Amino acid sequence: MSKTVAIIGCGLIGQAWAISFARAGKQVRLWDAKDGVARTMLDQLPPILDELTKNGLLKQTVEKVLSKVMVCDALDDALLDVDHVQENTPETIETKRAVFQRLDELADPQTVLASSSSALLPSNFTENLKGRGRCLVIHPINPPYLVPAVEVVPSQWTSPDTLKHSVELMSEIGQVPITMKRELDGFIMNRLQGALMEEAFRLVDGGYATAEEVDIGIRDGLALRWSFIGPFETIDLNAPGGVVDYAERYNEMYRGIAATANERVDWSGSVLSDVEDDRRQRLPAEQLSERQAWRDRRLMALIAHKKKAEEELGS
Amino acid sequence: MSKTVAIIGCGLIGQAWAISFARAGKQVRLWDAKDGVARTMLDQLPPILDELTKNGLLKQTVEKVLSKVMVCDALDDALLDVDHVQENTPETIETKRAVFQRLDELADPQTVLASSSSALLPSNFTENLKGRGRCLVIHPINPPYLVPAVEVVPSQWTSPDTLKHSVELMSEIGQVPITMKRELDGFIMNRLQGALMEEAFRLVDGGYATAEEVDIGIRDGLALRWSFIGPFETIDLNAPGGVVDYAERYNEMYRGIAATANERVDWSGSVLSDVEDDRRQRLPAEQLSERQAWRDRRLMALIAHKKKAEEELGS
Repeated sequence: MSKTVAIIGCGLIGQAWAISFARAGKQVRLWDAKDGVARTMLDQLPPILDELTKNGLLKQTVEKVLSKVMVCDALDDALLDVDHVQENTPETIETKRAVFQRLDELADPQTVLASSSSALLPSNFTENLKGRGRCLVIHPINPPYLVPAVEVVPSQWTSPDTLKHSVELMSEIGQVPITMKRELDGFIMNRLQGALMEEAFRLVDGGYATAEEVDIGIRDGLALRWSFIGPFETIDLNAPGGVVDYAERYNEMYRGIAATANERVDWSGSVLSDVEDDRRQRLPAEQLSERQAWRDRRLMALIAHKKKAEEELGS
Repeated sequence: MSKTVAIIGCGLIGQAWAISFARAGKQVRLWDAKDGVARTMLDQLPPILDELTKNGLLKQTVEKVLSKVMVCDALDDALLDVDHVQENTPETIETKRAVFQRLDELADPQTVLASSSSALLPSNFTENLKGRGRCLVIHPINPPYLVPAVEVVPSQWTSPDTLKHSVELMSEIGQVPITMKRELDGFIMNRLQGALMEEAFRLVDGGYATAEEVDIGIRDGLALRWSFIGPFETIDLNAPGGVVDYAERYNEMYRGIAATANERVDWSGSVLSDVEDDRRQRLPAEQLSERQAWRDRRLMALIAHKKKAEEELGS
């Protein structure tokens, strides 16, 4: 199992990964192409770790976690004796190709090279590498120290060992891996989010509901059960005979709905204005960052609740 | 405002409505076409109310709530001095037509007649009624005493006063109404659920992920934030400049995803077998009802958490 990991690119996603790995006892080596960025990131960790402690989400002391993380000035120093690299540089194909080229040249051949990319397929930036078999995408929902799901996405040349290492490492640090059988645009989570949002935009565009009413339907409706059992288990428990029974009862209804949901409504123009008007009425633009901080507090409280509920009621 | 409501049809949905209304201080008159059903339902209320009390979700005493509910043997007695009827009979068009015919004949002309129907459009069973202007659908996600969202669905002849009464009544008893501008198959929530499930079945059918992995992506991923801010607020907070900024950044990506998500995968055959196999491996059929009871406990704990988090951190 991995003992030391390198975080390459120390923005918000790199920072969150550093916490996930260090909290689980891994040695974490930080590197960023820009001087000072890794150091600044390290300096920002204590208040986040304090918040995690307050919510019962950190087993070790803050000091112990911080002692696991070190800043490296040179890339080859960051890669020293590392068995897993988690890369978080900007999401352009040129950047990814250049970074993976360098990583593949510098890292020990045994080291797994994982990108946090949310939108680029691994085959797009690893094809011409000598070590392409050890490359893949591990895509988190930020921040992974709170949101457990991560997508492990192999290209057609990712080796079985690389995939196995990645899934085991993720499980070991407390993430819940989704292991894709092969790469696909949007992976799993952005495809599910996209499907829901396409219908949401269609409903607003058709004048059936407002953006806020869509949010009510999810926030005060469907996502309550989804947040602890997921949608397949939800329908499995929503018919006396389980999911087959459910499908037999409702396949026709959903087929009818799907037939009226074919036309894509572009996320622009008047429908986007309607959504924007609704949102800005509820949240002025100058309060966006304050609200993001509130969202993060609520997310942390929810994760603490889920942990407690699992202990008391089971999962 | 309504002071007395009638619950017509006393199965699980009628029972849950009775709790929602009585908890908010309404007088509730129960009636079911089958002798003894309403009485049995009444007898089942105390343990549910005890659970609500334990989770801090009942302000009054159990006795006080129970004192609001009475069983009526005759339909015309159940409708006496009632200003709102919530109907929960079986979901067939014939039943709904017959029941609404009777309700329209017997109830005071001022009484609003609301159906809990999840799949039938209100115009389908109210067209030929003299009082069709006072008829509509109010569709809950069961149980409404835990899940706040309800869909208020007018037909083209539902009067503005009927709609207004319904929205106000729902808000008054602590539900969060989605007021549809006009009726549409699947309303809002089943359409959103359908859109997500269509993609979920497609991903399983394509061999990209298992049913459990789809559940991970939602349960341990997307639905965490959705459960307290909804999907539109989620994307609004996921780009520095809000939802317009988000749409500009990702519209192309989602357009690409949508282009590969056109073909419907029927919820039957081999894909359904795959889902069923996965589910039964995790949950044998004989444990379905036990798991449903567990789900209800977890849902109650989640609602209690949300209430507490809203008090402490805001909403």
